[in-house]
Amino acid sequence: MQNQFDVIVVGGGHAGTEAAAAAARLGVRTLLLTQNLDTIGQMSCNPAIGGIGKGHLVKEVDALGGIMALAIDQAGIQFRTLNASKGPAVRATRAQADRSLYKRAVRRLLEDIPALQLFQGMVGDLLMEGDQLAGVILETGLVLRGPQVVLTTGTFLGGRVHMGDQSYAAGRAGDPPANALAQRLRAMAFPVARLKTGTPPRIDGRSIDYSVLEAQPGDTPPPAFSFMTQRIAVPQRACHITHTNIRTHEIIAANLHQSAMYGGHIQSVGPRYCPSIEDKVVRFAAKSAHQIFLEPEGLDTHEVYPNGISTSLPFTVQVELVRSMRGLENAVLLRPGYAIEYDYLDPRDLHLSLESQRLPGLFCAGQINGTTGYEEAAAQGLLAGLNAARRARDLAAWTPGRHEAYLGVMVDDLVTRGLDEPYRMFTSRAEYRLQLREDNADLRLTPHGRALGLVNDARWTAFSTKQDIVQAERRRLEGLRIHPGSASAGRIAAKTEQPLSRDVTALELLRRPDWDYVSLLNTLELPLCTDAQAREQLEIECKYAGYVARQHDEITRAARWEGTDIPADMDYAAVRGLSTEVLQRLARQRPQTIGLASRIPGVTPAAISLLLIHVKRRGLQQAG
Amino acid sequence: MQNQFDVIVVGGGHAGTEAAAAAARLGVRTLLLTQNLDTIGQMSCNPAIGGIGKGHLVKEVDALGGIMALAIDQAGIQFRTLNASKGPAVRATRAQADRSLYKRAVRRLLEDIPALQLFQGMVGDLLMEGDQLAGVILETGLVLRGPQVVLTTGTFLGGRVHMGDQSYAAGRAGDPPANALAQRLRAMAFPVARLKTGTPPRIDGRSIDYSVLEAQPGDTPPPAFSFMTQRIAVPQRACHITHTNIRTHEIIAANLHQSAMYGGHIQSVGPRYCPSIEDKVVRFAAKSAHQIFLEPEGLDTHEVYPNGISTSLPFTVQVELVRSMRGLENAVLLRPGYAIEYDYLDPRDLHLSLESQRLPGLFCAGQINGTTGYEEAAAQGLLAGLNAARRARDLAAWTPGRHEAYLGVMVDDLVTRGLDEPYRMFTSRAEYRLQLREDNADLRLTPHGRALGLVNDARWTAFSTKQDIVQAERRRLEGLRIHPGSASAGRIAAKTEQPLSRDVTALELLRRPDWDYVSLLNTLELPLCTDAQAREQLEIECKYAGYVARQHDEITRAARWEGTDIPADMDYAAVRGLSTEVLQRLARQRPQTIGLASRIPGVTPAAISLLLIHVKRRGLQQAG
Ligand SMILES: Cc1cc2nc3c(=O)[nH]c(=O)nc-3n(C[C@H](O)[C@H](O)[C@H](O)COP(=O)(O)OP(=O)(O)OC[C@H]3O[C@@H](n4cnc5c(N)ncnc54)[C@H](O)[C@@H]3O)c2cc1C
Ligand SMILES: Cc1cc2nc3c(=O)[nH]c(=O)nc-3n(C[C@H](O)[C@H](O)[C@H](O)COP(=O)(O)OP(=O)(O)OC[C@H]3O[C@@H](n4cnc5c(N)ncnc54)[C@H](O)[C@@H]3O)c2cc1C
Repeated sequence: MQNQFDVIVVGGGHAGTEAAAAAARLGVRTLLLTQNLDTIGQMSCNPAIGGIGKGHLVKEVDALGGIMALAIDQAGIQFRTLNASKGPAVRATRAQADRSLYKRAVRRLLEDIPALQLFQGMVGDLLMEGDQLAGVILETGLVLRGPQVVLTTGTFLGGRVHMGDQSYAAGRAGDPPANALAQRLRAMAFPVARLKTGTPPRIDGRSIDYSVLEAQPGDTPPPAFSFMTQRIAVPQRACHITHTNIRTHEIIAANLHQSAMYGGHIQSVGPRYCPSIEDKVVRFAAKSAHQIFLEPEGLDTHEVYPNGISTSLPFTVQVELVRSMRGLENAVLLRPGYAIEYDYLDPRDLHLSLESQRLPGLFCAGQINGTTGYEEAAAQGLLAGLNAARRARDLAAWTPGRHEAYLGVMVDDLVTRGLDEPYRMFTSRAEYRLQLREDNADLRLTPHGRALGLVNDARWTAFSTKQDIVQAERRRLEGLRIHPGSASAGRIAAKTEQPLSRDVTALELLRRPDWDYVSLLNTLELPLCTDAQAREQLEIECKYAGYVARQHDEITRAARWEGTDIPADMDYAAVRGLSTEVLQRLARQRPQTIGLASRIPGVTPAAISLLLIHVKRRGLQQAG
Repeated sequence: MQNQFDVIVVGGGHAGTEAAAAAARLGVRTLLLTQNLDTIGQMSCNPAIGGIGKGHLVKEVDALGGIMALAIDQAGIQFRTLNASKGPAVRATRAQADRSLYKRAVRRLLEDIPALQLFQGMVGDLLMEGDQLAGVILETGLVLRGPQVVLTTGTFLGGRVHMGDQSYAAGRAGDPPANALAQRLRAMAFPVARLKTGTPPRIDGRSIDYSVLEAQPGDTPPPAFSFMTQRIAVPQRACHITHTNIRTHEIIAANLHQSAMYGGHIQSVGPRYCPSIEDKVVRFAAKSAHQIFLEPEGLDTHEVYPNGISTSLPFTVQVELVRSMRGLENAVLLRPGYAIEYDYLDPRDLHLSLESQRLPGLFCAGQINGTTGYEEAAAQGLLAGLNAARRARDLAAWTPGRHEAYLGVMVDDLVTRGLDEPYRMFTSRAEYRLQLREDNADLRLTPHGRALGLVNDARWTAFSTKQDIVQAERRRLEGLRIHPGSASAGRIAAKTEQPLSRDVTALELLRRPDWDYVSLLNTLELPLCTDAQAREQLEIECKYAGYVARQHDEITRAARWEGTDIPADMDYAAVRGLSTEVLQRLARQRPQTIGLASRIPGVTPAAISLLLIHVKRRGLQQAG
């Protein structure tokens, strides 16, 4: 083995695999070093990819030539479009994965990249030459040289698993922690702090009474993640739905003192957005039930992931709480739920390129930056890998702006605001979210990806062809004028009960809320464009043009309110539409101005708009 | 989860999975507890099942309703019959596995067994009530009750990985060790000692020049392991062959002092039969080349397992030695080779049932008993699981005799002789090996398995049908008399150039070495029996009847030589056919009689026969 590389990626999770793939795709000599080659691409927690905000990140990673979307398309066993009935900005794809097929797919995709070398080893230290980063040192003493190192150690740095009042050192249940490296990073005075997250117990599906549960099948046909996927070939499975109930909540409340989280065993902060069931019961005390999705873990295993009951209660309480739910009365558990506490590095040390300010050449991505979620990790990984490779080539870093990508929003948030709890992506974090849609991720990013060297010929050809088709179709509809009194106009009028008063183009009609692409073209007796992706893009473009313009106005207007005072007696609970989370944060900090409010971590641009409207309305009321 | 079981199996390796499957198949409440559900059925070392002696064990496990043969038939990517041209006693099946498909298959087979429950957890202690075994305690404090416990902890008890002069605690690379349990077993004064084994580095197949290497495809059609498998449906792959050379041996010799094994870092003894490449170079100094098989690790990975170069040299030396071989000049390594040292419990504490004498209710199987190999582990696991379940039901233990199964030979060897190095199965260990063949494993064991409750209806029906067919075919051939002068006799004579002198049955002809089943029946213009397994069994039965009888004589005769003196000046090197291993042992101990020689561990019955012949001949020569 050569032991001189351009980029060394430490960690084979979701961040590490994208980082290594991105760097290697640029052709620089890349090494992916990970604790155990058999856990490459392992899903630590739920067997699912995507969801609102997260699906957007996956499509962005895909548009930039990443692997996550391709992998889930080869391993997904239930695909759905969430919010299908809502606006395209919040529409998102989500898929359940067969856990072992997913790992296989990631491994296979990595092995297809020529400049990428994999190696199994545990990194124990950074190799320094004077104050210059020069590579890494394995716990076995082996030195691997490379002036760019990407750390993606996930929950492994000083990882500690908690359940009830018991705890032990681990990177995740069954995997050893990365303690040597954690100690070294602390010794080198990196800004280290602790966070925590949790996972639910797993259930043996043979013990579930599915007959009393609502089934939730996927969409037909399954909506793929990758812009390159023609169709999903994996057999599909349904999820099932159950609920917590008063009894469940009583069990939890009665045992709260025994929870690792509430019993004082864990100091660090967990994700508010994937709260433990203990959290939910405490914070939403008024709610008498929470929905729990029973997600299959694979095609040929009975193991089931109960999404929504992450817990660090003692195991016996876990059994009781699971069995209090409908359909789970006789549930047998396969693995206990637990919480894990781990080191992260304050991302305010990072440039927007994800390179450390303190130690040039060191890049960080994923959970180590304080984020949570596979998709957040993957997107950062891609960016860090890209910029590490660019640095190796003496090229300037590249990062998409907040207006270009959720990836841009996330990195900007992390680097400028830091965090006080695990950071997760939401559409509400993006002030330009009407244009940061899943459907146009390729349009936003694939040309960048091509210029950066991330996008291969096949993807570029597919992208260009799609854009040509969209444009041809746009022109065709634009060129098609319908005259009042023509036969077409008659059919149009019959459908909308509104006769045309002047010449219109088919494109103008498509912009109107009455029409979708298919019914319009059928009514006009025109042949349909056969490319479904192209059709979708054209349709959304037309329909959305107005909203996007309006959003720009709103944002500009909001900027003008920067200095607006918030009344000292403000009742935040009265602000319509604020999430519980934002409400709590505002109520706790009570900022004096809208500008100050907007800089409180976790207070989203959307929340600021709501606040502005409220303050303005209150001002008018008091004035009136 | 219920927490009261009849049988608790600790460990999800090859012993543990068979133990759990066997116990659960008997219908007793069985729990399989393992560190990580994702590593159930994991192959720690080479991606292959079977081989000489080992294939026999796999077929025995299958005949007793076990899972290993079914799993490899669902995951095998190259199947061969070894020694196909030799006698059926030493013929053996061997298959390469797709590592991840193998794990999937094992997991799926386990999940199909109703009385079996899986649970992820690390056992830290045995639960005692007074001096009675009452269950196990997890490292998280959870207590699981069950009066029968089967320990199958593999290389994990106090496991320590070594490479060069570096070492660290691990159960195997990437997995944490079982230290708490190891400490408890020592504290409880179990007879603990240390052994070691090793594994080679893995190679990135993309860096191998296959064009200069000899390919070794599997047999067509692939010979299945399980008596239940109709045909292998997995795509097949070839292995490749390269060799070590003088240069390789020089590199190793020059760096021997740096080897964990030879540098004094490991005290314990490793397997003589899977020696490290350091061992081979030292012990067979005269050999200028060793054959190395390059085995694919799976269908869609480039990872390659170089069978034959297990090593604990420092990693940089590993790279050098790999690259000294043809086709590997540019080899890139994916994982380092290493040695592992671990605790085992002296099996002389065990009954033939594999139950501990010291602690009733505790059973041990696999590597923890000092054996090496997946197949040895699986066979012991099945026996331990069976007998644990029988104990739960107050039934007497069952163990096959040395004349019935390799499993019987192995357990008898372990329990009565103990070991001073990892125990591996060889055909030469079995004095009745002419009747302990792969082909008749079902005949030897399936009726036992049925009576014991291990064999389900499907297998029993298949077995009975096959035996009916064999018997019908035997009767058909027995009833078929060929008269000298008949047309059939003429065709027979034409083939063998020997006219018939009297009436013979077709069965008698089949016993003769001239004929195999197919050519005989074709010559007689008779329709063939369509069941290939049945045909094979009948043919071998006929051909082998004579040999088997002769073997019985030999064994009886050997018993008579028990008190025969061995000359004090005996030159063991002059004994024809002794293995290097046996030779060294005899030369070291210089036993006074044949009887004493036969009780030296590792000195096989076959070796005793050779020794007897030699001593007798020498006696005659000196007398003459
Ligand atoms: C118990 C648990 C619960 C979770 N719950 C949630 C949840 O509810 N919601 C959610 O969105 N996310 C959750 N996650 C987080 C999710 O798993 C991560 O967000 C995601 O996996 C992060 O990806 P990553 O690449 O940063 O890290 P990981 O996927 O953790 O990958 C880290 C990789 O680095 C390797 N590694 C670590 N240290 C070293 C070293 N020194 N040398 C070599 N290799 C090393 C590891 O072996 C691993 O391959 C949970 C994770 C755990 C463990
Ligand atoms: C580095 C290495 C090299 C090897 N080389 C060879 C070779 O050259 N030739 C050969 O024939 N064999 C070799 N082997 C041995 C082969 O792997 C074993 O023979 C075989 O796996 C034994 O099966 P087992 O079931 O006894 O143990 P394993 O397959 O090791 O399984 C042990 C199981 O127990 C679990 N476990 C351990 N402790 C606990 C606990 N306290 N609580 C819960 N679960 C626990 C583990 O997670 C694992 O699932 C090698 C093994 C290693 C690690």
